[in-house]
Amino acid sequence: MKNIGFSQVDITGGIMGRRYKTNAEATVFAVRDRFMETGRVDPYYSDESLRAENYPKNLHIFYDSDVVKLVEGAAYIVQKKSDPEVEALIKLVEEGVARNQGEDGYFNSWFQNNDQDKRWTNRDWHELYTAGHLIECAVAVYEATGRRTLLDCACRFADYIEKVFVTEKSAKFLTPGHEEIELALVRLYHATGNKKYLELAKYFVDARGNKEEIELAVKERGIPSSIQAHLPARKQFTAEGHAVRACYFYSAMADIAREYGDDELLTACKTIFEDIIKRKQYITGGVGQNHVGERFDHPYLLPNENAYNETCAGIAFVMFAKRMLELDTDSKYADAIELAIYNAILSGVSLDGKAFFYENPMEINLDKYKMDDWVDTNIEYEKMPRMQQFERQKVFACACCPPNVCRFFASIGGYAYGKDEGSYYIHQYFNGQMTDGDVNIKVETSYPAENTVKITAQNTKQVAVRIPGWCKKFSLDRRYTMHKGYAVIEGDGEINIEFDMPAVLMTAHYRVNSDVGRVALKRGPLVYCIEAMDNGGELRSLYVSSKLNAEISYNKELDAYTIETDGFRIEDSDKLYRTIDDQPKFTPTRIKYIPYFTFANRGVTSMEVWVKLKRGE
Amino acid sequence: MKNIGFSQVDITGGIMGRRYKTNAEATVFAVRDRFMETGRVDPYYSDESLRAENYPKNLHIFYDSDVVKLVEGAAYIVQKKSDPEVEALIKLVEEGVARNQGEDGYFNSWFQNNDQDKRWTNRDWHELYTAGHLIECAVAVYEATGRRTLLDCACRFADYIEKVFVTEKSAKFLTPGHEEIELALVRLYHATGNKKYLELAKYFVDARGNKEEIELAVKERGIPSSIQAHLPARKQFTAEGHAVRACYFYSAMADIAREYGDDELLTACKTIFEDIIKRKQYITGGVGQNHVGERFDHPYLLPNENAYNETCAGIAFVMFAKRMLELDTDSKYADAIELAIYNAILSGVSLDGKAFFYENPMEINLDKYKMDDWVDTNIEYEKMPRMQQFERQKVFACACCPPNVCRFFASIGGYAYGKDEGSYYIHQYFNGQMTDGDVNIKVETSYPAENTVKITAQNTKQVAVRIPGWCKKFSLDRRYTMHKGYAVIEGDGEINIEFDMPAVLMTAHYRVNSDVGRVALKRGPLVYCIEAMDNGGELRSLYVSSKLNAEISYNKELDAYTIETDGFRIEDSDKLYRTIDDQPKFTPTRIKYIPYFTFANRGVTSMEVWVKLKRGE
Repeated sequence: MKNIGFSQVDITGGIMGRRYKTNAEATVFAVRDRFMETGRVDPYYSDESLRAENYPKNLHIFYDSDVVKLVEGAAYIVQKKSDPEVEALIKLVEEGVARNQGEDGYFNSWFQNNDQDKRWTNRDWHELYTAGHLIECAVAVYEATGRRTLLDCACRFADYIEKVFVTEKSAKFLTPGHEEIELALVRLYHATGNKKYLELAKYFVDARGNKEEIELAVKERGIPSSIQAHLPARKQFTAEGHAVRACYFYSAMADIAREYGDDELLTACKTIFEDIIKRKQYITGGVGQNHVGERFDHPYLLPNENAYNETCAGIAFVMFAKRMLELDTDSKYADAIELAIYNAILSGVSLDGKAFFYENPMEINLDKYKMDDWVDTNIEYEKMPRMQQFERQKVFACACCPPNVCRFFASIGGYAYGKDEGSYYIHQYFNGQMTDGDVNIKVETSYPAENTVKITAQNTKQVAVRIPGWCKKFSLDRRYTMHKGYAVIEGDGEINIEFDMPAVLMTAHYRVNSDVGRVALKRGPLVYCIEAMDNGGELRSLYVSSKLNAEISYNKELDAYTIETDGFRIEDSDKLYRTIDDQPKFTPTRIKYIPYFTFANRGVTSMEVWVKLKRGE
Repeated sequence: MKNIGFSQVDITGGIMGRRYKTNAEATVFAVRDRFMETGRVDPYYSDESLRAENYPKNLHIFYDSDVVKLVEGAAYIVQKKSDPEVEALIKLVEEGVARNQGEDGYFNSWFQNNDQDKRWTNRDWHELYTAGHLIECAVAVYEATGRRTLLDCACRFADYIEKVFVTEKSAKFLTPGHEEIELALVRLYHATGNKKYLELAKYFVDARGNKEEIELAVKERGIPSSIQAHLPARKQFTAEGHAVRACYFYSAMADIAREYGDDELLTACKTIFEDIIKRKQYITGGVGQNHVGERFDHPYLLPNENAYNETCAGIAFVMFAKRMLELDTDSKYADAIELAIYNAILSGVSLDGKAFFYENPMEINLDKYKMDDWVDTNIEYEKMPRMQQFERQKVFACACCPPNVCRFFASIGGYAYGKDEGSYYIHQYFNGQMTDGDVNIKVETSYPAENTVKITAQNTKQVAVRIPGWCKKFSLDRRYTMHKGYAVIEGDGEINIEFDMPAVLMTAHYRVNSDVGRVALKRGPLVYCIEAMDNGGELRSLYVSSKLNAEISYNKELDAYTIETDGFRIEDSDKLYRTIDDQPKFTPTRIKYIPYFTFANRGVTSMEVWVKLKRGE
């Protein structure tokens, strides 16, 4: 199965249609403006007077990656619809890179402006990561505009990297500290047809975790698994270490498995994928539990308040899942993509598209801080060794997520359809259409806000529509056969599907300590949460009823369906411990849920995904 | 009400009788031997050839405090029953201190042997803490033996401290970094009758948290509340910072409140006490939740696996509660003492009396580590930023707890009885007797293993027996009136009490996230737990039944009553999240509980205090 690129897909309505539009009309400019204000774009101006006063001293070591990732998104945007302002940003960076690239092909504003001698001396400095993003950007700009300027820069850079790492072996390290270049090189190979880039990608994948590499990693960082350098790729069967690095690497492993028909690598990828979805993923699809090292943690260790769930890790996981779907057309991969998109990733950006979460918690508990007496008023951070973010920020020092969000939603159409010989797959139900030669598939739906999908297929021999894993009952007005989670329909014409999509309570595996005695509300792929501002007071005192009695209604402010359920509020108690037959009073109440992706859009307030279930319920 | 000293009390049976005996016959020697092996006792030998080769380089900055705390315990032991070996230890240290004490009265082996110029320059170096323990030890030795040698040393030292801190103000700090000397000085006042020591204690209490003090604390450590220096004592209403320091300080506050009739201080003490028992204490009576700073944490933040609960903090809390009981004869203080003694403190020492827990967790989860793939086999600690202790240790570098355990149980009789004019109070039901002039009270019981107490009082006008807060029903074969939790009986003679003492399930306050959906088993004051070795497999898969169906039986190996209850084992599942109506199978099983204080005595195994309750139960 081959995914169909976003350029062949229009998304024109529903949650994703709104997100696509906001991304192209607000997010790209919001991120651009913040990047300009913070000097990130300075190195790309030819006119030095446009540069920030203190340039280049305030450059971050991988500022370039932020900028080119944004430009990658910008390219996707203009590929679908021209926009002079977005075009101008692309040109600025395109020309800046071409102007600043070294004779030898090297490009990295920090090293070029600060200390050339530091090049390739420390793999934690993200040089190959930044190079990878430049390559992805170059491919995107080339595909959007047909201009080869950046693509040629990328090729020169990649040639130079091959020389340094393969031919001369003159770098002080063997493989990137932060993976990304591997999958980028595969894209460069596809864009140029030059197999040398694919081989370089394979070289980096193969070199990872060999004996020499492990020794180096121990010397450098002490923790090889934090950068997936603990074992050779083909011997890795669990998701380990920094989650963004990991999932970019697993994406490259899947790429190499596909390109070379490498079954050993494929097995590793499949096993790692199962390890993630069965033992290390939040109910929202978020990954990377632990803020220390931004990493995958112990299986089933999924704390709520301290959930890390970096937005970039969600995106990287979906990139991995997309590649797995191409290798093995099983709806479980598309299910995983759907879950992460609508929850873990969508929550990373505000509804207006201008503010971002780096971390996506499962709980915000402001009451905890309020209850404290803040005895050290002069040192407010004392009680909070790591201050949780309660609202989305416009920019952060390490601003990988905002441009990643931009490029992700600008190319979101690429996750919706696939083709396998004569068959067309519909993985995601985005309102809009797909065109592939004389084939056209139109999808009319408000899914997942609503539960019906009308598909009109023209000139298809076979259409395979995903029946989501969460769906226990559906109706489809055509004859179909099920195959790995897809309903396969012969011919073309109209297809109407209705998914049974009640609000349901979910429980977590018994090994997840944080969710014992708690349930989460889901409706279709959407995870719900409760915010204090809707529920009048302390969220911790609320208990949902297993009887639910759910009422679904449209909320204009959030432009989303909210759900009211039955529940209880427990009376406060001045006893810390009580016998089970002497419990405080529970008063029936209604509990107001909103979709998780809409939380923290109306001000700072407490939030819970996992709400307590009353004992005996 | 005035507590009756341990010297008037014999404990001859039951859990506490065994602990008393083991303490006097094993613990004191085990700790002595470890201290000798580690060079702690070296400075006290007159014969230099007896000193460890590398003396004095390997001295810890507060090794002296360990030694004199042990000798304090040794003195309590010989005060009750002579023992030549224990006497020898006392003499060794007594003579060593007298020999080594400076002309000016200063004593501290580290500073005297390493760098005299560092004296009184850094309050984090525990000089006043060590001085406090020396004073407590001196009072104990004096009271046990009548010898004034150490007492005179202590007085000279205290006089010198007053000169440095009050008269000359030549120290670089105002009050101790680790409180202890305040309560020690009150004891010195009682032993000598010299009010100057009481005034010095009050001086230190009063100086704490004034403006100058806060500024100094910020400069030194950044976090004034970590050493209770954030506010003046009379303005402190919540338990904050390092839990041992805090409770030693609150003990001194209570002492000063009592000695001076200071109602403002008394109010602060009462409010802090309530803050602890209602918001910051484990069900075992343990305090000091957070290992970072070994401190009191947010209210209701009571993690199980990461519970810190230092053994010394439990002891310090009980010292505070004992003083509160004297100030306000309310059984809630005696209840708190009982709870902490039988659970948080008793768990700090192995059944054989020779190994110790510094931290007392509420959960050990070895399965978590087993489930992990230990990808970095060469760096095993990687996944464990703070390695939990799974078994008691014979000694630790910072070995405050072992000698504290020794002195605590050697004087445990002092927690049992009180006297208020003609009334005798029985706070704790230890099998044995109390003699006060012509008054004798004999207590025959196996409480809390069993539920009956037979009291024989001679020559009492009135006896007040505590009806424990956990007890919902009791019978008493004499006429009585209730007063603040005590059944008050006129006259003397035999009194028989039977407490209704079923095994009961306890729940935690709804704000305690870690205990949601979980219950703890208690019987009387004893908290129970489950160990994997008794329950065949993964503890996390066990759910207790609210119907309990408890069967209590004697376990010879643990010399304690264990409890079997009804429960369920959940089937493993490869789904991380499931809908509430699609749950894995629960198979009925019996669950075997042991008293918390006996856990980790039969090898390394997983443990849970808070066991899951099955949904719907």
